[in-house]
Amino acid sequence: MSETTSQPCHKENVREHLQQVHRLLDKHALQEMAAHQQEMPRTERHELEGKVRHKRQLSGLREMLGGLHSADIAYILEALPIEQRLLVWDMVKADRDGKILNNVSDAVRESLISTMNRDELRDATAQLDTDEIADLAPNLPQEVIRDVFKSLSIEEREQLRAVMSYSANTVGALMDFGIVTIHEDVTLKVVSRYLRHFNKLPEYTDQLFVVNRDDIFKGVLPLNALLTNEPDMPIAPLVILDTIKFQPDENVGEAAQVFERYKLVSAPVVDEDGKLVGRVTVNSIMGYNRSKSKNDVLGQVGLRREEDIFSPMWKSVQNRWLWLALNLCVVFFVSRVISSFEHSIEKFVALATLMPIVASMAINSGNQTTAIIIRLLALEQILPAHSRRLIVKELAIAVLNSLALGGVSGVFAYTLYSSVSLGLVMAGAMVLSMLLGTLIGILLPLAMHRMGRATSTGTSVLLTAVTNSSGYFIFLGLATIFLIH
Amino acid sequence: MSETTSQPCHKENVREHLQQVHRLLDKHALQEMAAHQQEMPRTERHELEGKVRHKRQLSGLREMLGGLHSADIAYILEALPIEQRLLVWDMVKADRDGKILNNVSDAVRESLISTMNRDELRDATAQLDTDEIADLAPNLPQEVIRDVFKSLSIEEREQLRAVMSYSANTVGALMDFGIVTIHEDVTLKVVSRYLRHFNKLPEYTDQLFVVNRDDIFKGVLPLNALLTNEPDMPIAPLVILDTIKFQPDENVGEAAQVFERYKLVSAPVVDEDGKLVGRVTVNSIMGYNRSKSKNDVLGQVGLRREEDIFSPMWKSVQNRWLWLALNLCVVFFVSRVISSFEHSIEKFVALATLMPIVASMAINSGNQTTAIIIRLLALEQILPAHSRRLIVKELAIAVLNSLALGGVSGVFAYTLYSSVSLGLVMAGAMVLSMLLGTLIGILLPLAMHRMGRATSTGTSVLLTAVTNSSGYFIFLGLATIFLIH
Repeated sequence: MSETTSQPCHKENVREHLQQVHRLLDKHALQEMAAHQQEMPRTERHELEGKVRHKRQLSGLREMLGGLHSADIAYILEALPIEQRLLVWDMVKADRDGKILNNVSDAVRESLISTMNRDELRDATAQLDTDEIADLAPNLPQEVIRDVFKSLSIEEREQLRAVMSYSANTVGALMDFGIVTIHEDVTLKVVSRYLRHFNKLPEYTDQLFVVNRDDIFKGVLPLNALLTNEPDMPIAPLVILDTIKFQPDENVGEAAQVFERYKLVSAPVVDEDGKLVGRVTVNSIMGYNRSKSKNDVLGQVGLRREEDIFSPMWKSVQNRWLWLALNLCVVFFVSRVISSFEHSIEKFVALATLMPIVASMAINSGNQTTAIIIRLLALEQILPAHSRRLIVKELAIAVLNSLALGGVSGVFAYTLYSSVSLGLVMAGAMVLSMLLGTLIGILLPLAMHRMGRATSTGTSVLLTAVTNSSGYFIFLGLATIFLIH
Repeated sequence: MSETTSQPCHKENVREHLQQVHRLLDKHALQEMAAHQQEMPRTERHELEGKVRHKRQLSGLREMLGGLHSADIAYILEALPIEQRLLVWDMVKADRDGKILNNVSDAVRESLISTMNRDELRDATAQLDTDEIADLAPNLPQEVIRDVFKSLSIEEREQLRAVMSYSANTVGALMDFGIVTIHEDVTLKVVSRYLRHFNKLPEYTDQLFVVNRDDIFKGVLPLNALLTNEPDMPIAPLVILDTIKFQPDENVGEAAQVFERYKLVSAPVVDEDGKLVGRVTVNSIMGYNRSKSKNDVLGQVGLRREEDIFSPMWKSVQNRWLWLALNLCVVFFVSRVISSFEHSIEKFVALATLMPIVASMAINSGNQTTAIIIRLLALEQILPAHSRRLIVKELAIAVLNSLALGGVSGVFAYTLYSSVSLGLVMAGAMVLSMLLGTLIGILLPLAMHRMGRATSTGTSVLLTAVTNSSGYFIFLGLATIFLIH
């Protein structure tokens, strides 16, 4: 459960350790090791010397790894190319495998698991808490999961089944079982005596959970109250009855907001019958927030999963391919829109040079508006009564910005091509298409939200497609009407 | 220091409360209130009734607000239009002003502070801890800060000066002073007795800080150890000497990674002389992460600050204007690149319809690569030795993807315009410009990083400008060479 080698954590030195590992395992060392493994004839004295030096290096490395926190080893494994990574993985003591697997990113985890046999995997998993096993489960072969399941106690099996039954974005999937429960009818002294029976309390224990004889959740006793009151006091008046609790099927995003708003370290998870089933900690919440912000940033350019430098190229290609293909479809469509005005462009080639300006500005004003709306929707602070107000405000902003920038563009076009009507068409198209872009940028996320769907990569492709092609259409359309007869 | 009304926190009901406030304060109610304030002659019986009903409503509202956590009141204030917001703000008891100001977003905070006079502000600030005062300080008028400073103890003045002296992205700016210190030469029993003198321990107290007589930091005593060991034990063997500590000028981003990697709740901040100066908690780290991820998402579309629905329009216009103007400059430049090929386009108008395809794909492959590189740089897991490997891999991915999509585009162009050479030019331009886009997408962030500068909005504008215009240039250039004689 708890990490025995967790101290000392040389945070300042993780990168230094990484560089050291890398140096010890450079190409030269690897070649020597390969030679060693092939048991080449020991003819040359030089070779023998090399081997001795190499062995010394490796044992030094093994010792260094032994002294590191498993999170640090995970960090180092992630930063090493696959051959070196597997060498280091072999050197790590087997009794830490589970913790380390739990700390590495998905791609690296796969590469490590693929080198382990059924027994090794079962042993590694057996070191973990049930909630950690649940995290690992998607990467494990079926038969290993079955083995592990058999080795668990009835209570643990139930816990594992529970965590795995909740879908990814619910509190239930994130909960753990590091709950210390007490009964209501005791004194602080009794609680203190009970706690001393623990070897170590679960991480993030800032409160004890009070339950009755039927495991029905009653409230919490903060350690704070335990520590600042006289031992003879009964706990009953100190128990907080109306505390923040979650249901297992609640959305994690909302739970994350609650954690930050009320400054929580841990919170109980209680099922429909009022039974205490687990707890959520600030660590799970931080992990969720981090992966969400990561996905936000990567999702904006259509990447579905994180890549590491050493992941197989084929996977990276796949990761990027879909988005590029989608985008190609969008521009094919845009290209068809333009081609319906080929006749106009042939007559007035300036249109071809000016049209990307309008389209690009339409996309940008749409994107800005959408970013604002998505933020507001996530905070759930838009009351239905305010939606209209919001739309009006966004449009007003777009009017001001598009008038200013449309004016500049009009002057730009006029200066280059000395045509007043071209300047006017340019300015007019800019205003219209920025307004339209804004309108789409408001309505699309609002509509997705009302239909109960999350705004996703798909939304952003659709938004770009519509704003981009309508930018071209408006500009070329106006030009055809007013400039080409 | 601690929130007296923090319980109960009705998290499920915050939105309900918000709606209730909104209902109580709707237009009708506001008009009545205005009438009331103007002391209109009480001629009509109907009006009198309205007033009575209205008064009852308001006192109900006041009561409801009294029962809410200040974070909830902050949430409600943020979601109300300015008139309603100020009404609610007036109704909140003055002794909670400080906490609430500390919980609202910057824009809302400004609107609230602007209604308060010097005395009110001083009283509100006086309720806060020094680290909270430091958070508020940038929004306070100079003379209020001077008043507050005078009212502080010498120790608090020193703390306030310390926090405010560190720049925004350092640990020092984020630290607080909720440190419970003990000496090394006592038993657990003595520590327990000492803690009982506290009314309440600071939030997030998971460990006590051990210092010597000169305030030199020695180590930490986890509450865990205090609770699970016999009271007669001396603390010395339980103190963790080699614990994770930060220096005040360390970067917060790195501290955030350390917090998550080692699952910390709090950590000591120690100055160069080894003196304990404060602590960082997981709450500050979460707040930092949240604002960073928010800025990442908003920064991608060039928004410099968060907007709320009710912020003055002029500020919103400014917020969006710079990015749009920058973007306009970029497309003006792109437009000039295209116009240098006007002659070719005039001869072969299909070029105008196909050119946006190439440019858009170049931008996208550049963006994807940059997103990956920035993530890897943030994790600091790229060793210099691996940079070349990374570049080769990215280019290889680009070759595969560009060959596939270039081929598709070539066929598309050939099908539409029945020209083999146009198809070949299209495919060739796509491959070249996606490769170039990728190369720029790698080198730009790497170069910024090596120069010690963070990748910013500016980088992304530059990246788009270069990839976009080189996409047009390559396609139109190839076409001019191979299609136009």
